[in-house]
Amino acid sequence: MRIAVIAPSCPLNREAAEAVAAIAAARGDCELLIHSQCFSSDGHFAGPDEERLAALRQVMADDSVDAIWFARGGYGSNRIAEAAAAHLPAGARDKLFMGYSDGGFLLAALHRAGCRVAHGPMPMDIMRDGGEAAIARALDWLVGGEATALEPDLAGPTMAFNLTVLSSLLGTALEPDFTGRELLIEELDEEHYRIDRFMFHLTSQPAVRRASSLRLGRCRVPENDRPFGSDEEGIVRDWCRRSGIPYRGRADIGHDAANKVVPFS
Amino acid sequence: MRIAVIAPSCPLNREAAEAVAAIAAARGDCELLIHSQCFSSDGHFAGPDEERLAALRQVMADDSVDAIWFARGGYGSNRIAEAAAAHLPAGARDKLFMGYSDGGFLLAALHRAGCRVAHGPMPMDIMRDGGEAAIARALDWLVGGEATALEPDLAGPTMAFNLTVLSSLLGTALEPDFTGRELLIEELDEEHYRIDRFMFHLTSQPAVRRASSLRLGRCRVPENDRPFGSDEEGIVRDWCRRSGIPYRGRADIGHDAANKVVPFS
Repeated sequence: MRIAVIAPSCPLNREAAEAVAAIAAARGDCELLIHSQCFSSDGHFAGPDEERLAALRQVMADDSVDAIWFARGGYGSNRIAEAAAAHLPAGARDKLFMGYSDGGFLLAALHRAGCRVAHGPMPMDIMRDGGEAAIARALDWLVGGEATALEPDLAGPTMAFNLTVLSSLLGTALEPDFTGRELLIEELDEEHYRIDRFMFHLTSQPAVRRASSLRLGRCRVPENDRPFGSDEEGIVRDWCRRSGIPYRGRADIGHDAANKVVPFS
Repeated sequence: MRIAVIAPSCPLNREAAEAVAAIAAARGDCELLIHSQCFSSDGHFAGPDEERLAALRQVMADDSVDAIWFARGGYGSNRIAEAAAAHLPAGARDKLFMGYSDGGFLLAALHRAGCRVAHGPMPMDIMRDGGEAAIARALDWLVGGEATALEPDLAGPTMAFNLTVLSSLLGTALEPDFTGRELLIEELDEEHYRIDRFMFHLTSQPAVRRASSLRLGRCRVPENDRPFGSDEEGIVRDWCRRSGIPYRGRADIGHDAANKVVPFS
């Protein structure tokens, strides 16, 4: 199993790359190809749009690559996602793609284009407390399809996104078909009032109301100067009730080392 | 000219209310009716949704009221905007409505419903440096339609929004018809990478691409841990170029005391 790592958003740091490469080498069941583009830097991004897109296209076109792993999130994959999913190289639909957070833009675009994508840990997660477990889980799933790596309550067609990222792709060419799918969301560093606003935006979309149900992953919520009056689950329940989308409880995903894998289907 | 003040989002403070009431009284050309709901509080909001909606409906139905002025922004008018614009009382379309920031949700919904709305200063702006000038400008326009209160480069049909608010209403029942209209945007406390993400979201909408042009108001941008690589005007120019929306320069609006009035048309 050959796994290519590219950075569609922000750069990977060398320390993280070395640690993840060491874990992969010690396993002996996979070869990690960390693309030099991961260390490129151009303002906010891991190189200009053209460079990030070219690296992604290169590994998508490489017949020796079985899986493409996004190095980290941050911001920027939306700027190349539509182009990346257009004119896919032969064989791109046979590879696995995995990432989360900002990588959700690419997951959406590639899934629309018929690729096999999953929301799950990324190499940069090695820097988190307990990050080794996240990397082991990701590789267990990429290499062997290990079932214990999966979010434990998957029931039918599912998609998972960071809520901010999902809000930002609604109505764009990246928007996936939510019909009949369970939608899992998680959030990081957005105050309760912002989660409420994103939930308004999300659940007010006719296309999102065709989802079968919604579950809420973990949210790390900064304190605001005004307490909101309810917590993130109360907010999500409220908007599900208003919009008629069934709420099916919590999900085992989030911006943390415990983040489980959710293959889109 | 009777001007009713209600708070569709967060509460007004008493100090601001008294200062604005004193300014209005000293002018002698208008009567300010500050609704008691402005001081109500329920978690994040100026009272529960039902109370905020009822206060708005009450002043919309009051034949003695000529204009309805949103007390301040914050967050929350999206939660009542669709209901507020449905089943408008007789006479609501003869009144003026003014506000900005979070009030943009209501501006959009009421404009869709055929009301006369304007993006402009609000009572809470009295708390800003130079706030008296903002209040005087707002009242000059509400009372006498004073032309010097207007954004100085209005040319044809126009709408103005806070960028975050605009992003959050795209695809919802509040979305206005952008066709042939110039779109003015301003932003507050969003990092450059977030402005870039909002601009991606905005300019990727087919409905927004029907706008005649776009202008950028003032943005107060917090520093990020990574410099973005371009400033807000560079970002907006870039997305206008990518999307084919003509960029027509800066606009004299923003979250500050110099914020000019932009009537929707």
